[in-house]
Amino acid sequence: MQNERLDRQVDFCREIDKEKFIKRETYVTGATRMENDAEHAWHAALMAIILKEYASEEIDILKVVTMLLIHDIVEIDAGDAYAYDEAAQATQGEREKRAADRIFGILPEDQAREMKEMWEEFEARETAESKFAHTLDNFQPVMLNAATDGRRWIERDVKLEKILKRNEITAEGSKRLWDYSLENFIKPNVEKGRIRK
Amino acid sequence: MQNERLDRQVDFCREIDKEKFIKRETYVTGATRMENDAEHAWHAALMAIILKEYASEEIDILKVVTMLLIHDIVEIDAGDAYAYDEAAQATQGEREKRAADRIFGILPEDQAREMKEMWEEFEARETAESKFAHTLDNFQPVMLNAATDGRRWIERDVKLEKILKRNEITAEGSKRLWDYSLENFIKPNVEKGRIRK
Repeated sequence: MQNERLDRQVDFCREIDKEKFIKRETYVTGATRMENDAEHAWHAALMAIILKEYASEEIDILKVVTMLLIHDIVEIDAGDAYAYDEAAQATQGEREKRAADRIFGILPEDQAREMKEMWEEFEARETAESKFAHTLDNFQPVMLNAATDGRRWIERDVKLEKILKRNEITAEGSKRLWDYSLENFIKPNVEKGRIRK
Repeated sequence: MQNERLDRQVDFCREIDKEKFIKRETYVTGATRMENDAEHAWHAALMAIILKEYASEEIDILKVVTMLLIHDIVEIDAGDAYAYDEAAQATQGEREKRAADRIFGILPEDQAREMKEMWEEFEARETAESKFAHTLDNFQPVMLNAATDGRRWIERDVKLEKILKRNEITAEGSKRLWDYSLENFIKPNVEKGRIRK
């Protein structure tokens, strides 16, 4: 049996296991440890399914879910740049492009192209699906930060202004989820002094 | 604004964060630690997308992916019963049913019903989607066991016979993936004495 295609697909499936080692800057419930990229992708993808009725535009939910499942694969090579670390953010784009070429390039050509295009669409934030995917990508960690008493916001001395800037895209994908996040996760933590004004 | 529906959805999204604490009996790459349920669900769901062309029957891939994303949520209450631990397996069903009632019950009624039915469909292993989801649920840990030199098979002294019994369903969802798993992951590890005959 000709297995070359399946061999490449399985090589890719084995390679992406490394996403489980990429630590994020978000505490999981109980703040006992940080979340990793694979856990975050699972959480955000499932949340997209549960919360899809709040998308601003009509969306293909399978596309949103696929985007969220793959959106951090590039960090296997490029690492996680903390949302509020400007120095790391500045050079992150180039590193991520090279990572996408290498990692998606393990797949058979047609799938490599398809997955790379999907990741580029996510990054470009232009389509309805990519905007809603970004809504979840931002809503999920803010929800967890609030659930862990803002511990990471305090440790990183995060300013409200930066959270608002980071979340400009959140409202584009879903005004309702952004409003909820602002009212229930962010404002109460500003009042408690866990987020700096 | 009436938030009761969204409040329940967000409560569910926060509750399932605990899936990240449920340890499995599969080593991740490098065998430095065990995988958890959230990581496994992410990995299996994404692998289903990559490998969907090998499904035995026509499938709704969004349904397969959703099933895989939710299939272990019940383990938040019921715990993970190792595939080759018969005592744990015997009582697992009842614990999981109660867990499904409680955890999916956090959602608004329509979604609670939908998610519970999806989980029950997965468990029943009768539809094309549930069979293919089980193929991935089994293929993924066997792939990782092989990638970590069969360490968990050795530690647990697992017999070939049990692996074959566990994997009867794997071939139903995809003969091609089962054949690949048998030839590339299982047989070489029997030959090396890591799986007992």
